[in-house]
Amino acid sequence: MKVSVDGDRLSTEIGTLAHISSDPYPAVTRVLFSGPDMAARAWFTERCQDAGLSVRADGIGNLFARWEGSDPHLPAVATGSHTDAIPLAGQFDGVVGVLGGLEAIRSLKAAGHRPRRSIELVMFTAEEPTRFGIGCIGSRIMASSLNVDQLDLIRDAQGMTLAEAASAAGYTGETASAQLPNNHYAAFVELHIEQGPRLEASGRPIGLVTAIAAPSTLHVTFKGPGGHAGAVLMSERHDPMLAAAETMLAVDRAARSSGSPDTVATCGFVEVSPGAVNSIPREVGLLIDVRDIDGARRDGVLAQIRSAARDAAERHGVQFDDELLNADPPAQCDKEILAASTAVCAMLGLESERMISRAYHDSLFMARVCPTAMIFIPSRGGVSHRPDEYSSPEQIRQGVEVLAGTLQRLSESA
Amino acid sequence: MKVSVDGDRLSTEIGTLAHISSDPYPAVTRVLFSGPDMAARAWFTERCQDAGLSVRADGIGNLFARWEGSDPHLPAVATGSHTDAIPLAGQFDGVVGVLGGLEAIRSLKAAGHRPRRSIELVMFTAEEPTRFGIGCIGSRIMASSLNVDQLDLIRDAQGMTLAEAASAAGYTGETASAQLPNNHYAAFVELHIEQGPRLEASGRPIGLVTAIAAPSTLHVTFKGPGGHAGAVLMSERHDPMLAAAETMLAVDRAARSSGSPDTVATCGFVEVSPGAVNSIPREVGLLIDVRDIDGARRDGVLAQIRSAARDAAERHGVQFDDELLNADPPAQCDKEILAASTAVCAMLGLESERMISRAYHDSLFMARVCPTAMIFIPSRGGVSHRPDEYSSPEQIRQGVEVLAGTLQRLSESA
Repeated sequence: MKVSVDGDRLSTEIGTLAHISSDPYPAVTRVLFSGPDMAARAWFTERCQDAGLSVRADGIGNLFARWEGSDPHLPAVATGSHTDAIPLAGQFDGVVGVLGGLEAIRSLKAAGHRPRRSIELVMFTAEEPTRFGIGCIGSRIMASSLNVDQLDLIRDAQGMTLAEAASAAGYTGETASAQLPNNHYAAFVELHIEQGPRLEASGRPIGLVTAIAAPSTLHVTFKGPGGHAGAVLMSERHDPMLAAAETMLAVDRAARSSGSPDTVATCGFVEVSPGAVNSIPREVGLLIDVRDIDGARRDGVLAQIRSAARDAAERHGVQFDDELLNADPPAQCDKEILAASTAVCAMLGLESERMISRAYHDSLFMARVCPTAMIFIPSRGGVSHRPDEYSSPEQIRQGVEVLAGTLQRLSESA
Repeated sequence: MKVSVDGDRLSTEIGTLAHISSDPYPAVTRVLFSGPDMAARAWFTERCQDAGLSVRADGIGNLFARWEGSDPHLPAVATGSHTDAIPLAGQFDGVVGVLGGLEAIRSLKAAGHRPRRSIELVMFTAEEPTRFGIGCIGSRIMASSLNVDQLDLIRDAQGMTLAEAASAAGYTGETASAQLPNNHYAAFVELHIEQGPRLEASGRPIGLVTAIAAPSTLHVTFKGPGGHAGAVLMSERHDPMLAAAETMLAVDRAARSSGSPDTVATCGFVEVSPGAVNSIPREVGLLIDVRDIDGARRDGVLAQIRSAARDAAERHGVQFDDELLNADPPAQCDKEILAASTAVCAMLGLESERMISRAYHDSLFMARVCPTAMIFIPSRGGVSHRPDEYSSPEQIRQGVEVLAGTLQRLSESA
């Protein structure tokens, strides 16, 4: 069976969706349940219905577009991603997996594929943490990694709870029913842009993800007495900024000395109080992101950073506190899905390489409740979360071909 | 002549003024030309008029309360300070010099002093940089250190120019006339809280300032390509945060190795873009405050910091820019005023010590246009710019006694 992906239609649709945004093209901003997020959902629903798929929403706003298989009682095969976007993001992160998933299904239909298992296309709610400070809300709930009781406690900057926000957006169903039983799906496969430089460097069009690195976030704070930047002599200071600076360098050192290139650690957020040029800081807070494909090694690096931060605080005579905000386990991708995608690449004559996903995705949580894998396509310059994020129409088309072939194989199997 | 300072009346007035604030007592917030700032000006004007002083304002809102001397054509002797307060400040910074100056004048009047030279009490506009990002606005203009043409260019966060703000506050006079000719005043002496720990440590009630340290502000920025905190390997990074962290440590090192305890350097302000936990920073900006009593040594430390920052940028492969926002020269206090205050302390039996002012004040600019000196009183714990800033009523009374005696001597001289 020859599956032909309509790359032009897909590119047009990606361009259309990019204009449904709170910021002007090519910047894309679609915050959870904002006007553009709701408009994108409505537009996506129509595209699915046009393709003959039935669409339902669960209580947290995850959307499911279903192509009924010949044996609808068998667990379905699922694909999908997200369409929400952080402020001033690009047009491909998430979107390639949602609209590419739709295009894969349309291609399979056009090629005459008759799936035994149903195929479901999922548009996950809020993969990005923008509004509620927590990412992958939809998939976390599906995987029961986020307790539905929490929905009344998690609030946005305006004080609205997640439950209220979902309800205000019209998702009034029971959120507990969003939780998936194990192996509700036979397989989940997500097409995504790499958001890193590997594929561009190797020149291979397809990355097959073997594992998703374990993310974690550590919050450290240093507190001192502060004081006037002119009046307090150097010998009398207890400056939390210096302990923070030493910790930033320790973050870098810990990741580089882990023994594996798979360890990454970053300090991307600093908060200084009072934050005045003429005041010695009284409090400095850092958010530290540590990831590794190996959960134990990641935890070792976290421990090393905490210890270095504690030592730095002691050296500077400042108070130290730390809190581990999250430390999710890594996910291993499913070998059978990998094998299916590998075979599809070979058939299509597309070179692929196995790689790990260093960014996390809804797949990290889906992997807890069903066999899961990811297909990556190249990102120009490794750039993501920026308006100049880019994958070419041809790169996207090739990714969708691999996704379509994989869904075809998975939906045929007993 | 026995001069008796009414410490109770002064403490009551300081308490009253502390309640004229945008934040609840004991926190004091009086931002330039805000409701509380204007109310404080009106209340202060009434207190001066009650004391028989004539009050005038210049075009930038500096207030001058005048006690006419017997030879009104001689240059006057001036004292004063400011009543504006940064957000959540205390009740003594500046206020002690304004209300203490008023109390000194009342005491001299009550004691039957008949000044030969007129005595003027100055309430300076905006010593604090809160609203327009630049401190000592009133005294800078008086000393022609801030060109009046700039008043149409300097804007607050709402986009209002300084000229518009002064005019809206009712100060519609020609601002150019606020510029003082050299030696318009025979002397200027400012009573102020120390804002540092020296006097408390030595147990002496009075500090006589010999010089005011030279302040400077350096803005450095580091720029890199950014990237996803998960996706970009450590070996591929050019992280401006690490160059910034090394620079913060270099700031500390440069000040400590200057060869003098008078050198202080601080990084109290950090700005990170995009400032997201899952993003490698693309841009990190630091504001660095460097002060020294020796202008050349201060400039040497600045050069050392710039060089260290440049080296750090090079090591991390990030772009570097720096801008020296200000670098004012230090001020030497006038020996004759110092001698007068020293004699007054001796007469009153108050132990004094000579010290430098590491914080800067309106006196830094007044020293450019007339003989200037400062009298310090202890600050509990060296604390300032906080609601718990404290000097005892007795410490304040003693400071006012020294100020009154100094004004008495200076206003008698030919």
